Amino acid sequence: MKPTITIIRKAAPAIGVVAAILLYLGTTVPGYAQQQPPASPSPADLEKHRTTPSGQYEPSLDKLGEKPPERAEPTAPTLTKAEFEQASRIYFERCAGCHGVLRKGATGKALTPDLTRKAGYEYLRDFISYGSPAGMPNWGTSGELSKGEVDLMARYLLNEPAQPPEFGLKEMKENWKVIIPVAQRPKRKMNNLDIDNLFSVTLRDSGEIALISGATKKIEHIIKTGYAVHISRVSASGRYLFTVGRDAKVNLIDLWMDPPQTVAEIKTGAEARSVETSKFKGFEDKYAIAGTYWPPQYVIMDGATLEPLKIVSTRGMTVDTQEFHPEPRVAAIVASHHNPEFVVNVKETGQILLVNYRDIKNLKVTVIPAERFLHDGGFDKTRRYFLVAANARHRIAIVDTKEGRLVDVIGSGGQTPHPGRGANFVHPKYGPVWGTSHLGSETISFIGTDPVKNKQHAWKVVQTVDGQGGGSLFIKTHPQSENLYIDTPLHPDAEVSSSVAVFKIKDLAKEEPEFTVLPIGQWSGISEGQRRVVQGEYNKDGTEIWFSVWNSKVQESAIVVVDDKTLKLKSVIRDKRLVTPTGKFNVYNTRNDIY
Amino acid sequence: MKPTITIIRKAAPAIGVVAAILLYLGTTVPGYAQQQPPASPSPADLEKHRTTPSGQYEPSLDKLGEKPPERAEPTAPTLTKAEFEQASRIYFERCAGCHGVLRKGATGKALTPDLTRKAGYEYLRDFISYGSPAGMPNWGTSGELSKGEVDLMARYLLNEPAQPPEFGLKEMKENWKVIIPVAQRPKRKMNNLDIDNLFSVTLRDSGEIALISGATKKIEHIIKTGYAVHISRVSASGRYLFTVGRDAKVNLIDLWMDPPQTVAEIKTGAEARSVETSKFKGFEDKYAIAGTYWPPQYVIMDGATLEPLKIVSTRGMTVDTQEFHPEPRVAAIVASHHNPEFVVNVKETGQILLVNYRDIKNLKVTVIPAERFLHDGGFDKTRRYFLVAANARHRIAIVDTKEGRLVDVIGSGGQTPHPGRGANFVHPKYGPVWGTSHLGSETISFIGTDPVKNKQHAWKVVQTVDGQGGGSLFIKTHPQSENLYIDTPLHPDAEVSSSVAVFKIKDLAKEEPEFTVLPIGQWSGISEGQRRVVQGEYNKDGTEIWFSVWNSKVQESAIVVVDDKTLKLKSVIRDKRLVTPTGKFNVYNTRNDIY
Repeated sequence: MKPTITIIRKAAPAIGVVAAILLYLGTTVPGYAQQQPPASPSPADLEKHRTTPSGQYEPSLDKLGEKPPERAEPTAPTLTKAEFEQASRIYFERCAGCHGVLRKGATGKALTPDLTRKAGYEYLRDFISYGSPAGMPNWGTSGELSKGEVDLMARYLLNEPAQPPEFGLKEMKENWKVIIPVAQRPKRKMNNLDIDNLFSVTLRDSGEIALISGATKKIEHIIKTGYAVHISRVSASGRYLFTVGRDAKVNLIDLWMDPPQTVAEIKTGAEARSVETSKFKGFEDKYAIAGTYWPPQYVIMDGATLEPLKIVSTRGMTVDTQEFHPEPRVAAIVASHHNPEFVVNVKETGQILLVNYRDIKNLKVTVIPAERFLHDGGFDKTRRYFLVAANARHRIAIVDTKEGRLVDVIGSGGQTPHPGRGANFVHPKYGPVWGTSHLGSETISFIGTDPVKNKQHAWKVVQTVDGQGGGSLFIKTHPQSENLYIDTPLHPDAEVSSSVAVFKIKDLAKEEPEFTVLPIGQWSGISEGQRRVVQGEYNKDGTEIWFSVWNSKVQESAIVVVDDKTLKLKSVIRDKRLVTPTGKFNVYNTRNDIY
Repeated sequence: MKPTITIIRKAAPAIGVVAAILLYLGTTVPGYAQQQPPASPSPADLEKHRTTPSGQYEPSLDKLGEKPPERAEPTAPTLTKAEFEQASRIYFERCAGCHGVLRKGATGKALTPDLTRKAGYEYLRDFISYGSPAGMPNWGTSGELSKGEVDLMARYLLNEPAQPPEFGLKEMKENWKVIIPVAQRPKRKMNNLDIDNLFSVTLRDSGEIALISGATKKIEHIIKTGYAVHISRVSASGRYLFTVGRDAKVNLIDLWMDPPQTVAEIKTGAEARSVETSKFKGFEDKYAIAGTYWPPQYVIMDGATLEPLKIVSTRGMTVDTQEFHPEPRVAAIVASHHNPEFVVNVKETGQILLVNYRDIKNLKVTVIPAERFLHDGGFDKTRRYFLVAANARHRIAIVDTKEGRLVDVIGSGGQTPHPGRGANFVHPKYGPVWGTSHLGSETISFIGTDPVKNKQHAWKVVQTVDGQGGGSLFIKTHPQSENLYIDTPLHPDAEVSSSVAVFKIKDLAKEEPEFTVLPIGQWSGISEGQRRVVQGEYNKDGTEIWFSVWNSKVQESAIVVVDDKTLKLKSVIRDKRLVTPTGKFNVYNTRNDIY
């Protein structure tokens, strides 16, 4: 085992790296200001044009990838049906996360034909091949796309976007399968798994999750899921595991079966990021909810079968200017512990919906006005307050889920906060705080969360400290831990992106707290690739923390387990089945919202 | 005075007349089933094509009437900017109510260019000139439109529809005027009007209301309003009168001033039907709400200034198939007496929204699933239950506004119910009932409304009786009255449309109750025109009932006042300022929901 390296306040490249960074999870920082594309955009203009034209879209009945659009103009090259389908699939898997399902741009630039045709075929082909320093990956030279595929995509982009269809009850029911009916499922746990200490690990590019034992660190089972599972969630009882793919496919996995397997599945739309399960007393395991990017809506489902029960559109007014937005995507969803409610974060409008599931027939929704570009967040330690990042606005919105009202929207103290679910601990000077790191700056911010005993600190950024640099996605600690970990997987410096920073919580009382750097990438024993280290996740007891060492699909990846007390390497999980591991979800911590 | 005529169960033409009928108030019975226009519609096909293609629309930034659409094709004749503006104005005033703002059809056929171009110029010109027996008015031969205007409209319809703009907070604020600030308004009533017995009468085609004294029957004041005021509402205190025009203009009229005048106004969109004011204890006069047909949304405003505070889109899922609908229009709105809530009826999706205004920042909305094509309705006698017609589905939805839940959706017993606000009385056999008449049949239906002492009759059609025929818009009685009046203004038979039927409530115990016919049109003394008799409205004491005798703009109209006890003519109001009078709203009855 190699020694850890201690560094004091390493200088950190900041915002310039963000664009590249956001490719990872389809994270978006949409602009929404510019109403008209430039009259005659040069390729440089095209590069800069990252905004979403307000309210302009033209829904059609074309199914995504089903047939070529009928509006193709003479200036656009003709694609065969097969080519169009292939290109649509590639676009959805590789491009839509940044450029948007409707190609209106978000993190990536807009790719509507008015712009792409002015740029021209050669420009597009070269851009796709070589990428750009602003964050466009080099799909061609990296080998991810063949020369033929690059050519295809350049031609595809000169045509009108394929418009994804609406997805109502009919479409959901057509895509809903109960594989094992409830009556045929076991009445008790049939396997020998220690379910509470199981990790559900996203294998991003293989469309699977791996169930890994917390004790043995062995892959117990691989389960086919949707593409690029964004998160796993666990039902209140701990029996059912829910996954949601980027392709909006939800899997319901029964952890009592031997082996655990998908007992129901449903496709809820064209693109999604969130799934959650009802946790309020009396409603345990009863309902599930999935939120989609396209169509912009959410669906409440039966918790045991995924039968779609209630679909609700999120199209509506922005929180500030109160203008209609045609595509307000559903970002994070959490389940309230204080009311029978789901907390649904609507990105582009900046509204937080408290969706009450006590009577889903006469559905009651409280609309909390927060801030545009809501993305991800988590509860405070008491699980009463929910803190969520409005990433492109560099702010954190705080909701009181008990009283159903907005507490405040405050500056995050850095650029583009990305808390994941955040990290809760008792700060030596400020009492209970919730922390977030940032995508766009090295800042790590702590916000007071105790309005009773530490009222003067509540809902204020009480301290910021600098970590290794920007490009952080996740901050992590555990109630049993004295450490605080910050990853930087999207930092452009390979040394920084393959390591994590650790603060001793007690050191945060100092003027300029030091952090330790753990060279997780090195520890993995893998020498190829970028070895981006991402998303610390604790085991049930909080004695060890797991990190993904994330390489491309054709390279080797790993999971590195660190002893939380000693900060030493404890174990490396290497397995050829471990393809592009990203998020890891410990069953116990996930179902109890411990973070 | 002429004698009344007693008729026993006159034979009644039924559904065929409905299409013609619905022109009156822009009432709509939209179909929503057919997905594709016929491949090659003949003029006959065109005539039949009354459905709205599902979910297909193409919003653009063109302002209604501001500039010609850019998508005009070579087959469409070119219009100058001035012509386009003129045609858009005529279309909005004359055609949009039936054919829809987006020309997708509703009561009238769809008029999208794919259909109109196949029909051709001559067909359109002649159809506009001569009308059709299915209900299209003869705009040309009636003289309402000149030959040049008919030509213009035919050419206009061959072009793409002008797409109305979205209307967000910015647009509303630009169109909002406080004419007399609150501080400059009187502290007490400054005039000698008996406000409680004042009638606010819509002068449809002059864009005005007349304030008429209930005692003297004199027009006290004429006030400029939006075009074709759909309803008047009165604030809980009785001081403020709200009107909403078809053009979505809301006027706030201070009845304390001498003379009463508009103290604030706002345009809330392109087309509207509903306005209401907060009535719950503690919130009297505090808020107002307006619901729009376009854009499909509602806005909560300050009750004293009309400042727009909160705009909420109604675009969302249909109640039955749970598919996205792009244009769910807001029909009737009423103010709950049991909760601080507005009851907002969304037509195309069939959802009833209970919009809680206790905390309009963190807005709470309960979505009650009812039935598609909600239109108009009213409370039961206790003002706890709200009954609303789903007109094209021939059903009545009942909501418990105290508990915020759907009670039931039941068949109305006839074709296309149009209750207005309905009529409440104690039935001699069935106890408290609420009644509705029908547009599409002669049926008058009574629904039991007392789930406590008459549980076996509650929420059932306990009796239907036949009136003079279809084409009824309003049924009326009053707590002090023993009579029940049913108008038939849209009946094709001139004798029927210019008279009303009256039942003695006590006679409803009989097997086949008789009704009396009052020849109101004759009584008016006017001999020209159709003399359509519409909308009975009681004075404050319930001793007399007023009917509009409604002729075209270039003909004379009148209001006929009937003594409720004797059923004799009491008074005729004839005044050259009384242009096309339709709805009349007695201040006391309106503000207290007495009907």
